[in-house]
Parts: sequence; structure tokens; C-alpha cells
Amino acid sequence: MTKQKTAAILAIGDELLSGRTQDANMHYLAGWLTERGVELREARFVTDDMDDIGEALNALRTKYDYVVTSGGIGPTHDDITIDAIAKALGVSVITHPTAKKMIEKFYTAQGKEVTEARLRMARTPEGARLIVNKLSGAPGVCIENIFVMAGVPGIFRVMLTAIDDEIERGEVVHSRAATAYKLPESVIAGALGEIQTEIKGVSIGSYPIDGDDKGVTVVARSTDAAIADKAIEAVATAIKAQGFEPVMSDRKKSEE
Amino acid sequence: MTKQKTAAILAIGDELLSGRTQDANMHYLAGWLTERGVELREARFVTDDMDDIGEALNALRTKYDYVVTSGGIGPTHDDITIDAIAKALGVSVITHPTAKKMIEKFYTAQGKEVTEARLRMARTPEGARLIVNKLSGAPGVCIENIFVMAGVPGIFRVMLTAIDDEIERGEVVHSRAATAYKLPESVIAGALGEIQTEIKGVSIGSYPIDGDDKGVTVVARSTDAAIADKAIEAVATAIKAQGFEPVMSDRKKSEE
Repeated sequence: MTKQKTAAILAIGDELLSGRTQDANMHYLAGWLTERGVELREARFVTDDMDDIGEALNALRTKYDYVVTSGGIGPTHDDITIDAIAKALGVSVITHPTAKKMIEKFYTAQGKEVTEARLRMARTPEGARLIVNKLSGAPGVCIENIFVMAGVPGIFRVMLTAIDDEIERGEVVHSRAATAYKLPESVIAGALGEIQTEIKGVSIGSYPIDGDDKGVTVVARSTDAAIADKAIEAVATAIKAQGFEPVMSDRKKSEE
Repeated sequence: MTKQKTAAILAIGDELLSGRTQDANMHYLAGWLTERGVELREARFVTDDMDDIGEALNALRTKYDYVVTSGGIGPTHDDITIDAIAKALGVSVITHPTAKKMIEKFYTAQGKEVTEARLRMARTPEGARLIVNKLSGAPGVCIENIFVMAGVPGIFRVMLTAIDDEIERGEVVHSRAATAYKLPESVIAGALGEIQTEIKGVSIGSYPIDGDDKGVTVVARSTDAAIADKAIEAVATAIKAQGFEPVMSDRKKSEE
């Protein structure tokens, strides 16, 4: 186990910013990285614009250990992620011989034609390695510290599985939660601030359920499980002192 | 009607990047701005970190006409958005007299105490105006081209209503869609590229339903409704030429 690595996601696509499509990849990646002890520090969403993609990529790849991109690697004219990344890195775009074979094999096996559009998905920045895509043939791409993946959630997840071994595990953050229904968070705000100050090595977050009077979930996060336990016990005591009964929980799968 | 204004959202909160909470505000804002002819060009998500918030804010506020922030303006110790924004703008944090009165009135009317934690929500960067919050009393803040709003989705939406008059309308983008189930997008990729090249003033996006073989939705977007119509008709013709029947639709409310 080492210190936590950091990561960012760059989600690419006009449809995400026009309100047409709700992104599902950021949230999934966040939970996936957290389980592996990697800290997702930032997410950026940009449109299908070469310069905007390049600028965001260059900012993120120099700041974080890993950058995961999603979207824009399909067969159509609006899929420009490969070109934008190559330009940002100052390398050429090539047709990757192995990617070409993968795509030929995938479509031929289905009795389908290997068209120019499909072969567009074999283009990579020069020097890239491939991320195997068991679902739909066309691979993702890894270059330097950047993982270039599909935007379609099912394929994004399959590609994550394929890069699992390349992600260096860090200290896993243990998360404990206490929920108090109907308790306004402002009532325990003072106590939470004190607990945050008194207990070292924990991060305490307070999340109102729907405004200040419907209740609150308090989350204690620490790489030391004992410290997370100690902090959430102190939170539970503060909740009880206000006459409310906390509902305790560890990090739930459904929240990931 | 003027040229389209541009906007960005800065969503703030550890819980969004840990995978605990799935953001709902970006997608809602995207549809809301699109309806008003304002282009959401970028979204950034950062953790509850003063420097990360400040750096992202300064990048976005100088690049776009409007910046909307969400999250981190509640009563607890982890709500640091006001402080981070004031620091980024180089101004002090004050207790805003009108905000203080709003909060006192809101809690007193419910027979609740006006605690120090609750008054924390009256703090604003110096020079800010208030965004009225009919739902839970504590206002949002507007300073320069920045709208500082709550992270709780219900309150975020109420605050959007309150700033509606301050958003300058631009040319509305008309959106038309054609869906072809079971048609791989790669089969019409060539035709789509040609339509994009031939018809000026339209942006054509191609969105596979779940990989390359489950079907595709093609969207034509233009500030000129007639051009959007013309483009989607050309797309429909290309779909029919492959022996598939397109399902046509205008922008649906459910997609916003």
C-alpha cells in the first residue's frame, strides 16, 4: 500500500452539456477509484471541440497521476477525441495495426462488413497501447497517464475492468455514515466543527437530505478505519444529545 | 435576441468525487440554459478545497459569460464555498445584513433559534447581491458574473428561478432527433459526415444507444429551425436507405 494516487475524469460530448444526456461515467468511476484507494480529485466536461479537449487534457494530465477520458471515440465525424488528444500531446494519429485486426475480427465474426467508418475506430495517437473492449470490439487507448475510453456506460465499464491491473492501489478510505432524519444540520453544525478539529486524520462531511430541516447525513472518512469509527461515534453522540436517533451505516454499495 | 451567451458550472463537494452522491444539478442546468439560448460550455467538479475551488473559479469566470456554482454554502464547517470565492476574487467575507434578516425571519417564524451556525449562511463575499431562496431561507449569492447556489437539488432549482431575469436570452438552439433501433451507427457514419459537410449552420451528433449494434440516435442542432429540419430529413433519408425506419422526435422535455 502506498499513498493515495490522484485521478481526474475528462468527459467529452456536446450531448452532456446540452442537457440531452445525463452522464453516468463520472459517478461510476468515482466509486470504482475510491474502492481502489485512488482519489478522484477533479472532473471536467467539455464539448466536442478540439481546443477545449486539448486544453483540459493538458491541465489534468500534468496535475494528476491518472486521467480517464470518456466519449468521442466512435465511428462518426463528431468523434474527435483521438485527434484532440494526439494534437495535445504533439504526436501523430496512426491506424494501430492491432486495433485494426481486433475490429476486422469482431465484425467479420458477425458476418458484417469492415467499413471505413469502422476502421476509424482503429486510429490512435502514435505510441498508444490498446484497452481491450470485449463488448463491441473497438478498443480504448492508453497513452502516458491517460486512459481514453468510450462514453457509452456499458463499454466504459468493460474498459475499466481491462485497465484494473494498471491502477496502483493506495490506502483505501474508510467511510462511516450517521443519518438523523428531521434533525436540521445547522443544529449539530457546531458539534461537527468541534469533532473535525479534535479528531486528527478524519474528514467529516455534512449532507442535508433536502434543505436544512429534513434531516442530515454525516459522513466520516479516513484511511484509518479506527479513526473513522471514533469520529462517527462522536457524531452519533452529538445527534443523540439533540434528542434524535442516528441511523448508522458503513459505505453502501448503492452509494458507489 | 443576441448571440449565444456562454456559461460554465462549478460543482463543489467531496461527496460528488468520492462516489457517495450523484450530481443532479449539472444536467438540470444544462437543459435550463439550453431553453434560454445560453450555451453551457464546460463543467468542473472539485472537492471542498479552497485552492482547487479558487483556481477553477478564476479559470471559468474569465472565460465564460456566466459561472454557476453549486454546493458548499450550508451551515457546517465543510461549507467553504463563500470563503473560497471571496479569496479568489480578492475581497473580504462579510455578514450580509439583508441575508442575516432573511435567516432570522425564516427561523423565527418557525419558532426556531437563530444560532451561530445558521447565521454562517448570511456570510457573503463583500459586494455580493443575494439570490432569494423561498425554500429554506438561506440565500444564494451573486457577485460579478458568478451565481453561487446550493448543492441540494431542490434548492438549486428554486435559486435558478430566482436568477431567471438576470440571464440574457440568446438564440435558442433547435434540436431534432432521429432514432434507428438496431442500426449500427458505423453503417451511417459516412452519410452523417457528408450531411454535416453539406448543410451549413447545423451540428450533427451521433449517439449509439448501447455500443455499435443496438441502434443510434442522431441529433441535428441549429439556431435556425428550418436548417435543423432540413438536416434531420437528410438523416432520415440516409437511415431509410439502409432499410431502417427512423423514429423522429423534437427535443423532449424528458431529455432536458
